[in-house]
Amino acid sequence: MRPDGTVTVLAGGVGAARFLAGLVEAMDPTHITAVVNTGDDTRLHGLHISPDLDTVTYTLAGAIDPERGWGLRSETWDAMEALDRYAAVRPARSGAAASWFRLGDRDLATHLYRTHRLGEGASLSDVTAEIAQAWGLPLTLRPMTDDRVETLVDLAGGDEVGFQEYFVHLRHDVAIRGVRFSGVDEARPAPGVLGALDDAGVIVIAPSNPIVSIGPILAVDAIARVLQRRREDVVAISPIVGGRALKGPADRMLGELGLPVSVAGVARGYRDVAATLVIDREDEALVAAVEAEGLHCVVTDTVMRDVTVATSLALTTLGVVA
Amino acid sequence: MRPDGTVTVLAGGVGAARFLAGLVEAMDPTHITAVVNTGDDTRLHGLHISPDLDTVTYTLAGAIDPERGWGLRSETWDAMEALDRYAAVRPARSGAAASWFRLGDRDLATHLYRTHRLGEGASLSDVTAEIAQAWGLPLTLRPMTDDRVETLVDLAGGDEVGFQEYFVHLRHDVAIRGVRFSGVDEARPAPGVLGALDDAGVIVIAPSNPIVSIGPILAVDAIARVLQRRREDVVAISPIVGGRALKGPADRMLGELGLPVSVAGVARGYRDVAATLVIDREDEALVAAVEAEGLHCVVTDTVMRDVTVATSLALTTLGVVA
Repeated sequence: MRPDGTVTVLAGGVGAARFLAGLVEAMDPTHITAVVNTGDDTRLHGLHISPDLDTVTYTLAGAIDPERGWGLRSETWDAMEALDRYAAVRPARSGAAASWFRLGDRDLATHLYRTHRLGEGASLSDVTAEIAQAWGLPLTLRPMTDDRVETLVDLAGGDEVGFQEYFVHLRHDVAIRGVRFSGVDEARPAPGVLGALDDAGVIVIAPSNPIVSIGPILAVDAIARVLQRRREDVVAISPIVGGRALKGPADRMLGELGLPVSVAGVARGYRDVAATLVIDREDEALVAAVEAEGLHCVVTDTVMRDVTVATSLALTTLGVVA
Repeated sequence: MRPDGTVTVLAGGVGAARFLAGLVEAMDPTHITAVVNTGDDTRLHGLHISPDLDTVTYTLAGAIDPERGWGLRSETWDAMEALDRYAAVRPARSGAAASWFRLGDRDLATHLYRTHRLGEGASLSDVTAEIAQAWGLPLTLRPMTDDRVETLVDLAGGDEVGFQEYFVHLRHDVAIRGVRFSGVDEARPAPGVLGALDDAGVIVIAPSNPIVSIGPILAVDAIARVLQRRREDVVAISPIVGGRALKGPADRMLGELGLPVSVAGVARGYRDVAATLVIDREDEALVAAVEAEGLHCVVTDTVMRDVTVATSLALTTLGVVA
């Protein structure tokens, strides 16, 4: 990559946010665009909630709660506690919804603002830019699309549920047999997304869940086509280390969908859109398995304990396309 | 009124809430139905807000903030403070909306719950009953209608604005030339409202703003017709004392709409639907003016400094129809 080059990152939630926190230390952050998954956006209590956008925003603002990995640090929970009064009257599905998806008081402001602006007719792109500006983020954040895409999880038990129902309410502790992205066939990339992918010196697929975080982004056909065309400049980072997801259900999802639960499974998932996979030293023995899928393999430290590791990972990733 | 009789109260916000707090001390509260104005309901940040229903609920639950007269006591404001971050980026109309309508964190839970249930297809009546149950209210609360009615204020300057814009944002500090209730022609009384009015031993019009609190209720045609038919059993309490509204803009609104700014103006507004007006001792000299409008006039203490005065006022009001 040229030193003044631009980088575009396909991003999910926590893993992507940590990578981006390293990337902004590794290069001029004004040359970074993050294209963020919106497949797990949801409406709750009438509010439009964009979990991955918020996780990226709060992390880059240094405001994320470091233990939970989502929501704001030093958060208060008065609204949620007050909701319990109503959940007690109606403990059924809606009451449950009131409690299983926790919204902190300060975090609520983000959802109130977003919902208000969308109600005024602003696009999700516009609102995302405004929220990023409010938090002083130096990079460009874009939702993958301004259209409605909804990740739906087909449970092995037979029910199809929304992503948050699966992820938060069921704690991703149930077997699945499929995932689909409702609305994605009609979804257009958000303004600026294709340009950012076309112009980038390097395109990075962040260490996010390949199926439900990166999957929805790649399911937007025009985005996938750019990556296929630019495959040599696309570097993915494996979210699987030692056969386990660092966070969330990526490992069991890979297995349940018939892919190897390892960096080889990640490589297979990305082989059409990425030429290189970055894996952790713990998986050094699997370099050949990754290469067997048709990808170059780079080995480094990928477990982002702190921003120093994340910065080093970012520099290594950028160095792939030199 | 028979001692086991039932009472139905047409109610706005603060004045009605205080009266009801006295009424529940004066009689078996399970025999009380309050029919509450929803003309100043609004959507803000995607949330359905019912200010008068909430003021009545919180007051009867002993949870109202006594200084403000709205919202919850010991409230926290973390969500609103966090909204300021976004208002700073967009200080225009939407940013302003974020700050001029203050929603406390615990109060937000009520709006979240209501919005969530309405989104599930519940009626406002159902949700109102659930919220009343959650707060342990002993009486029956009903919205005047489950349909959408919107109080719009025609400003002397030429603009027509929503009630909250006039009341909260402009602090009702501007001249008006009219009020209308959008949607009221199609609005049906909420379930149980007509029955409660038909069956009541006494119908009370609470000391609320005649134009924008009681006005929308009486603009529901079927409700007005019951009151006209039962006029002899309808007792109104004047919210005007000594030519001034105890709270809010009822006084200047009366004047701007061409009515006397006094108990006589209140009497004129209610003469088709109420046979009796209860006025404060301060207005004793205006008994003849009230009677000239065709109403009986009862003089007592109407300024509800505390629940003792409110209870006494309630007993006097009930005693009118004996």
